[in-house]
Amino acid sequence: MKTESGRPLSFSACGERLKAPEITRLMATALASPELLSLAAGFTDNETLPVEAVREVVDKLLSRSDAAGYLQYGTNQGRLPLREWLARRVSDQDRLPKEQAIAAEQVMITNGSQQALALATQVLCDPGDIVFVENPTYFVYLDVLRGVGADVRDLPRDAENRIDAEAFGQILDAMDSAERRRVKAIYLLGYFSNPASTTLTEKEKTDLAAVLREREMWVPVLEDAAYRELYFEEASEERSILGLDTFHDFPRLYLGTLTKPFATGLKVGFACCTDADWLQRMLYLKGQHDFGTAHFQQAILEEVLESGRYEPQLKLLRKTYFDKMRTLHEALLEAGLRELGWKWEVPEGGLYLWLEGPRGLDTGVESEFCRRGVENGVLYVPGDLCMGENREKNFVRLSFAALSQEQLREAGRRFAKTAREFTQ
Amino acid sequence: MKTESGRPLSFSACGERLKAPEITRLMATALASPELLSLAAGFTDNETLPVEAVREVVDKLLSRSDAAGYLQYGTNQGRLPLREWLARRVSDQDRLPKEQAIAAEQVMITNGSQQALALATQVLCDPGDIVFVENPTYFVYLDVLRGVGADVRDLPRDAENRIDAEAFGQILDAMDSAERRRVKAIYLLGYFSNPASTTLTEKEKTDLAAVLREREMWVPVLEDAAYRELYFEEASEERSILGLDTFHDFPRLYLGTLTKPFATGLKVGFACCTDADWLQRMLYLKGQHDFGTAHFQQAILEEVLESGRYEPQLKLLRKTYFDKMRTLHEALLEAGLRELGWKWEVPEGGLYLWLEGPRGLDTGVESEFCRRGVENGVLYVPGDLCMGENREKNFVRLSFAALSQEQLREAGRRFAKTAREFTQ
Repeated sequence: MKTESGRPLSFSACGERLKAPEITRLMATALASPELLSLAAGFTDNETLPVEAVREVVDKLLSRSDAAGYLQYGTNQGRLPLREWLARRVSDQDRLPKEQAIAAEQVMITNGSQQALALATQVLCDPGDIVFVENPTYFVYLDVLRGVGADVRDLPRDAENRIDAEAFGQILDAMDSAERRRVKAIYLLGYFSNPASTTLTEKEKTDLAAVLREREMWVPVLEDAAYRELYFEEASEERSILGLDTFHDFPRLYLGTLTKPFATGLKVGFACCTDADWLQRMLYLKGQHDFGTAHFQQAILEEVLESGRYEPQLKLLRKTYFDKMRTLHEALLEAGLRELGWKWEVPEGGLYLWLEGPRGLDTGVESEFCRRGVENGVLYVPGDLCMGENREKNFVRLSFAALSQEQLREAGRRFAKTAREFTQ
Repeated sequence: MKTESGRPLSFSACGERLKAPEITRLMATALASPELLSLAAGFTDNETLPVEAVREVVDKLLSRSDAAGYLQYGTNQGRLPLREWLARRVSDQDRLPKEQAIAAEQVMITNGSQQALALATQVLCDPGDIVFVENPTYFVYLDVLRGVGADVRDLPRDAENRIDAEAFGQILDAMDSAERRRVKAIYLLGYFSNPASTTLTEKEKTDLAAVLREREMWVPVLEDAAYRELYFEEASEERSILGLDTFHDFPRLYLGTLTKPFATGLKVGFACCTDADWLQRMLYLKGQHDFGTAHFQQAILEEVLESGRYEPQLKLLRKTYFDKMRTLHEALLEAGLRELGWKWEVPEGGLYLWLEGPRGLDTGVESEFCRRGVENGVLYVPGDLCMGENREKNFVRLSFAALSQEQLREAGRRFAKTAREFTQ
């Protein structure tokens, strides 16, 4: 079958904006070199995937007299008991009093939290609209923002590497009113973020809200909490934007998922939205895309949650990722990476180490460093892919989720070896 | 949790265009009246859903030593063996010689074929762009088109109710060159269409291609074949746009699904695209939406296909829907609907009866007829919801998929009773 008509197609403005994600070249490199140890992949740990739990749950569901219902269409918004469970979970985590608890009507089930991000952004942003993101931020969301033609701006950071609300206020003050009206969203990574594994403090969030409130800018705030459940030892005490009174007057979208915390192959995420109109429009758009996440997966996850199979799985994952993080961290330490001028924090959750290389070093996709890494048999995500407005070249994201303990040790050595080759 | 900030949000142009689907009011009516027999619902037959097959397949998959892989992320484009199977299936159905067979690289797996429709349209159409559709057409696709702001135009029909290529040529000739350039797609329902249950002949398709070719308009052609497998007794001999030489130079997208023909709760569809650039852009956009349909569902369906469980299920469905169609058809006949001036063809596949009421009768969403139907305990889809440019009021879609035999008989009687009340 011929694959080209030879006559170039005329695409929409959206179609024209779409480009290969920058990560694509890296992924192709990984595929071409199977012996490569990839600290770049977003895959989760294969060993701990809940094979038995899913088998038991499917068997249980499909033994019921009304089993056929699980294989029938569901609703566009998602299964009500699943939404109720998730609403309770988030309300508990945010210590919301009963009368302020999140309601199931405010929750929508999506194909991973990624879909909620895409829907939310498409109904908010026209080309040229401004969205503020952290630096660094979740790189696939940068693709979504570029996809709608948004103007991506960085939230400034202070010397402690916290969001600098005062500097943010100055940025807003430097805008004229037309530009301010184009600010359509603030995107925050609340917990054990991808890529930096940092957690925002309540103060960072409330200071940000204060700056917006003072200027009467009631901008939609998105908080991506995809990794909230994936702490190592202690859940974060910081409440999300749903739990903080100061956000009361802002339209808010909280994004969560059961994908990484349970089974990536099931890909069920969710979003809680405090603005009924915004939620409704996202649901209309979802109706056009798929009218509802596959019902069977939703039923599987609902049964997982209701039968108490989620907590043991989380417990296992937390320990597994903690151990893996320590292994990679220690491999890098032992190989002397700190002495080579590299810096990193030891994370308290999430799936990544976020490394800052010596100033002036270029670790970008096209860099000699990246090529040498591949020659040395190790792949990473260049940090600049995770940056919107101000792209710095000397950062690196290492994922410790997919590789085995032994592979992590070896990958750490290979990475440090590469770093050594670039130090004189 | 408060659901409104009280301050109206500013949405994107896309967000502003989104409205409640016209069908929503009907669905609310159905929910509010549980005793209502709904001939409107798009649900499939519950009794025949393949509970045992899915249970066996999941058990088999999750017993393998590499079972965890099925619960891990897959790829954005979809599982290769699944795409290979689907490429072979469509190539066989279209009697393509081996050297012209569809390749797995040309296939993408989607969240139902609906997602492929949405992706295809978003990368092609800007507001004001023209898309030609059949009259009637698939009503959810009309929502997608309105969502991107497209200008929906009808393909004209001749006295035999076939696509009138000559009249289509005249429509194109009446356009100036700027307007012609805005024609971005032709959307066809190839087989046992929703809602009219008609199948396009090869002649209709090739005549349409000839009209475009004569004018050197190499417009993308979409053929929605969602119901191709759901014939009653004989598969259609008509080849799709993939199998017809005359479409060789057109960018083509063929849409199929395993959702309605196997299990609606699994929601896996696919598209075959002959234009590599178009496909790539759809995949980039899918990457932003979900980076791949849930891997576990894909694995389930792949195993269903490879283990020979699909054909027996199809055989069962074909017989079930044939019987249900005959029951509803006969109930309407016996209740004397033909004598009341109503006309319909007996379909050879699909899930719908498409009825034409007496000229001048209004059966639309807001009509007295529709209200009386609800009072009489029966709901249908008003035909005008399935029409783009020229909306006629005296058509009705009746779905025979979800109700039982007995319910279909009763629903048919109630519908005919309503029709009688509107005949003097």
